Amino acid sequence: MLYPRFNGIFLSIEGGEGVGKSTAMKYIQDYLIAAKKNPLLTREPGGTAVAEDIRKILLTPQDEFITKDTELLLMFASRAQHLANVIVPALREGKWVVSDRFIDASYAYQGAGREIDISRIAMLEKWIVNGVMPNLTILLDAPPEIGLARAKHRGPHDRIEQEKIDFFERVRAGYLARASSDPKRFRIIDATQSLNAVQHELRNVLDTLLSSK
Amino acid sequence: MLYPRFNGIFLSIEGGEGVGKSTAMKYIQDYLIAAKKNPLLTREPGGTAVAEDIRKILLTPQDEFITKDTELLLMFASRAQHLANVIVPALREGKWVVSDRFIDASYAYQGAGREIDISRIAMLEKWIVNGVMPNLTILLDAPPEIGLARAKHRGPHDRIEQEKIDFFERVRAGYLARASSDPKRFRIIDATQSLNAVQHELRNVLDTLLSSK
Repeated sequence: MLYPRFNGIFLSIEGGEGVGKSTAMKYIQDYLIAAKKNPLLTREPGGTAVAEDIRKILLTPQDEFITKDTELLLMFASRAQHLANVIVPALREGKWVVSDRFIDASYAYQGAGREIDISRIAMLEKWIVNGVMPNLTILLDAPPEIGLARAKHRGPHDRIEQEKIDFFERVRAGYLARASSDPKRFRIIDATQSLNAVQHELRNVLDTLLSSK
Repeated sequence: MLYPRFNGIFLSIEGGEGVGKSTAMKYIQDYLIAAKKNPLLTREPGGTAVAEDIRKILLTPQDEFITKDTELLLMFASRAQHLANVIVPALREGKWVVSDRFIDASYAYQGAGREIDISRIAMLEKWIVNGVMPNLTILLDAPPEIGLARAKHRGPHDRIEQEKIDFFERVRAGYLARASSDPKRFRIIDATQSLNAVQHELRNVLDTLLSSK
């Protein structure tokens, strides 16, 4: 499960809107700190100053129509900065890196959601990610109507959150398809469970990772 | 020379730093207005509100290292917006579109200058530009030391202008290689000539285009 070329551990947390990624990130952070790790928590799009500038363009509701190709290229531009300047250096130093979304989000949102040809995403992945894949990816899964109802309480929707329900149905299906194509890397957690039950599953995943390292 | 699928004319002006592109753009604008055309003048990176936001990320000197892949992806993200929201609609309406830089700049700056594999640029071109090529491209050519000496008087250098002379030598060679691979589309103008001589050549190019339309 661990990549020989880096000493660190790379964990990504994926899922649609309102599935509880932020709460899970906080729980993982606290759990890893208690285990005497010094995890680096980061996110996509973003994670560096330049990548956060790209995130603003991606998520701010714009008067101008943003093409799906623009969206995909900006996601990978942000990812290139994130990998070169944050993820790879931290993994080289042996750190735990925990990212709120990574490559699978491009397949789910731009591939399944926007219906961009998967071969284009695979080509950009090969070029930009170049094998720096998470050791483990936690997919928090919930039907979009449940997640969106939760996300509504967080304030105004960003540009992508403004999409219609069928977009989020495709995103969810895209995530589940990614997970079933790579079951060794993915752990799916049912995000409709109680917070306690979700955190129990997170703890099991982290304990396994901690004991394998 | 003209593309049957659009009624408009698409002209791009290319060249390195300080070769006189802005002066040429102004001259072309005045000449086309005098010929009762209503030209749309635009530029890359940029040309739309979102693309100008991307331009800021590309050209502002940053504390953070911008990878060459990020640079190329941002250029094409900006181009996707420019094509979809400005160039293609204007060409459909039968307008003259004059762009300060377009696709050839990616081959010259990111291909020859940054030494990114040309096949990657060609792949992005095929995907994003999809054949919406300029009817004519004017390459203003001058040795970099002459252009850079002129550009110095314009104020602080942007992120790309801060590169070293050998970068601009590669950019110039990249432009000349592009021009010689597509002589039907390119007109090379020696930018070390007097302003009068340059404008005389621009006038000849425009007269030919005007009479062909």
